[in-house]
Amino acid sequence: MSEPSQSAEVISVGTELLLGEILNSNAQFLAQQLALLGIPHYYQTVVGDNPLRIQRAVAIACERSRLLIFTGGLGPTPDDLTTETLADFFGVPLTERPEILEDIAEKFARRGRQMSPSNRKQALLPQGAMILPNPTGSAPGMIWQPRPGLTILTFPGVPSEMKEMWRQTAIPFLQSQGWGQEIIYSRTLRFWGIAESTLAEKANSLLHLANPTVAPYAGNGEVRLRVSAKASTAAAASELIAPVQHQLQEIGGLDFYGTDEDSLASVVGELLEDAQQTLAVAESCTGGGLGHLITTIAGSSAYFKGGVISYDNQVKVNLLGVNSEDLAQQGAVSESVASQMAVGVRDRLNATWGLSITGIAGPDGGTETKPVGLVYIGLAGPNSVESIRQLYGVFRGRDLIRWLSACTALDLLRRKLLTGC
Amino acid sequence: MSEPSQSAEVISVGTELLLGEILNSNAQFLAQQLALLGIPHYYQTVVGDNPLRIQRAVAIACERSRLLIFTGGLGPTPDDLTTETLADFFGVPLTERPEILEDIAEKFARRGRQMSPSNRKQALLPQGAMILPNPTGSAPGMIWQPRPGLTILTFPGVPSEMKEMWRQTAIPFLQSQGWGQEIIYSRTLRFWGIAESTLAEKANSLLHLANPTVAPYAGNGEVRLRVSAKASTAAAASELIAPVQHQLQEIGGLDFYGTDEDSLASVVGELLEDAQQTLAVAESCTGGGLGHLITTIAGSSAYFKGGVISYDNQVKVNLLGVNSEDLAQQGAVSESVASQMAVGVRDRLNATWGLSITGIAGPDGGTETKPVGLVYIGLAGPNSVESIRQLYGVFRGRDLIRWLSACTALDLLRRKLLTGC
Repeated sequence: MSEPSQSAEVISVGTELLLGEILNSNAQFLAQQLALLGIPHYYQTVVGDNPLRIQRAVAIACERSRLLIFTGGLGPTPDDLTTETLADFFGVPLTERPEILEDIAEKFARRGRQMSPSNRKQALLPQGAMILPNPTGSAPGMIWQPRPGLTILTFPGVPSEMKEMWRQTAIPFLQSQGWGQEIIYSRTLRFWGIAESTLAEKANSLLHLANPTVAPYAGNGEVRLRVSAKASTAAAASELIAPVQHQLQEIGGLDFYGTDEDSLASVVGELLEDAQQTLAVAESCTGGGLGHLITTIAGSSAYFKGGVISYDNQVKVNLLGVNSEDLAQQGAVSESVASQMAVGVRDRLNATWGLSITGIAGPDGGTETKPVGLVYIGLAGPNSVESIRQLYGVFRGRDLIRWLSACTALDLLRRKLLTGC
Repeated sequence: MSEPSQSAEVISVGTELLLGEILNSNAQFLAQQLALLGIPHYYQTVVGDNPLRIQRAVAIACERSRLLIFTGGLGPTPDDLTTETLADFFGVPLTERPEILEDIAEKFARRGRQMSPSNRKQALLPQGAMILPNPTGSAPGMIWQPRPGLTILTFPGVPSEMKEMWRQTAIPFLQSQGWGQEIIYSRTLRFWGIAESTLAEKANSLLHLANPTVAPYAGNGEVRLRVSAKASTAAAASELIAPVQHQLQEIGGLDFYGTDEDSLASVVGELLEDAQQTLAVAESCTGGGLGHLITTIAGSSAYFKGGVISYDNQVKVNLLGVNSEDLAQQGAVSESVASQMAVGVRDRLNATWGLSITGIAGPDGGTETKPVGLVYIGLAGPNSVESIRQLYGVFRGRDLIRWLSACTALDLLRRKLLTGC
């Protein structure tokens, strides 16, 4: 094995993690923090409350990493084993720290409770380890260098306590030791209407950069490119990102819709607000999902009038003015009905734009000519009415078909607002 | 090192995990599933998109575990490396599988898109590996026994795809191979309208059983009790669960609403279908979220007519017949307007029931007398009209206030349908 690298490893201790009873949100928090501090981080390990297996995980970790960050296993109960197992592994005796004992007793007293004998265990740390104070809970952690070139930090598993200890003590300690001189800063670019593989090919020459790096992700119809730069300051990292971001946006063209926290709903909202225009929706298969998405944006009442959920055909006729002969002849899932729904809701709600969705979300209700996944989206504007046909594979399932329909409707309006055609 | 044990190890591949950009929810899902199947699971590893480090993680894992479950790194882009790295590690060549290529091409064609050359990579599997089909996405996984006593499963990182593949193919495969002889079988009981602590106190004597165990969970307004039994067959486990479930349902009374996959929307749907009655909704602050929730249920068209999203006050007047003087005098967020919305939508959509929501979801728009979190829910039935007032703390935030409003509206109708009063 080669020398351990100047990198960190997160080791989460707890059988509850291996039973899937809790999500390992501590590992995510620490990963984010290490990235922000620019501390390389190549492995995470989860291990149960078992001394032999904890020791094996430690043996592996200290061969490949120089900073081991433990969460969990610091409590008062017999299955909390992190501290004593570490001491045992490195062959160092535990010593009782009176200041910890006092602190725990005081915290119990403040809550009107008696400290129990089992809490005594929490005052034991390996000889030579420093206390990592826990201002909001009973179990402190430790900062320990059991041998040259190896640093161990331990934290309780309770996320709020761990985070506070990290911020107050661990970050200053790590920086004082020369860890984290560089920061990693990331920006996410968001695309709709293009496949991950197509975008990756178009952007291929940029996917192999060293700093910033560009990595594609995809899910639920959206493709994202994450641009990450390493530099000594956030401003320097931003400068590295800017030209690459610019090129990627050019490559994406109209398929690029936003960055970071943007969503199709927020972007469409901004465009409508800028144009001082309003929107109304008519929804069949999405059942209100499009309106719900639009109104996730605080302040959407500035441009969103509301809509009609015309799940039943009679509602399409009575509330939206869809022609009942067209309904009978062409069916509810048709270009003509989508257009009429859009026009109807635009006019009845006095909105600039009417956006409609009618489709077959499944799992039942499909036919040979109109299969599950067939969706028409209508858009009626100040000067025009149009509709598009989407065919989502039935394999995507009801929820995803409905989600894709709502997002694609927003995307249709977005493109219209951007191009005016 | 001792022999690897008859246990599973979850290996999550993805630099986005090491940067903390996503939560490792896949590892939690797999942990739960392994527990349900009774397959021991002692370690989890997270490693980035780096072939050398993936190989090191594999080397460690196959010394201590006999079943390695990989998620991530199966996509079409250059940083998706799981399959080729595994083939490389075990010194087995990759071969192109025409059936995968055909399946991907067909999925692209159905969406009217061209498969790109980079997708070709997803058709490569090590010689001797079986395809683990991906019914909902493009990248399949594999089931591979690269040497006696070692089984490898690979899954894409997209949670919905991974879960479907796990359920459809991995579970039957593992069981056929003799994994999971003792099963843990769980049933979740669902409650609405009661605090976790209140329910836990009422059910206190049952929270300390050994087999089955009863564990309370709470989140997003719902309280759940998970009853888990260990036995050699599902039938034996069910028999252990039944009497405890019965007692817990008795304790919950009307606050108990369903089990396992039930939701308030599905339970209300069943009650409406049984009564051959119909429902229409009028939504203000939820913006379509109530309708969307109702229509998550396949077949909801049997009882759901649709509704009106009356985000703008003029829509409340024009489409629902709310009295404009009442609107001006009492405000949109008032008992009177909630009732009129419910009556209006019931009558205009010819439904048995009209259910309405009007409130202040925030973060802005609150006043001293009508703070953020104030919501009125109206219910108009065949013989009566009523409304309830809810005050959700502003600290809950816009998304949760909207979610709680929609669920509480469904719960109001559920109680009405159950009791008739």
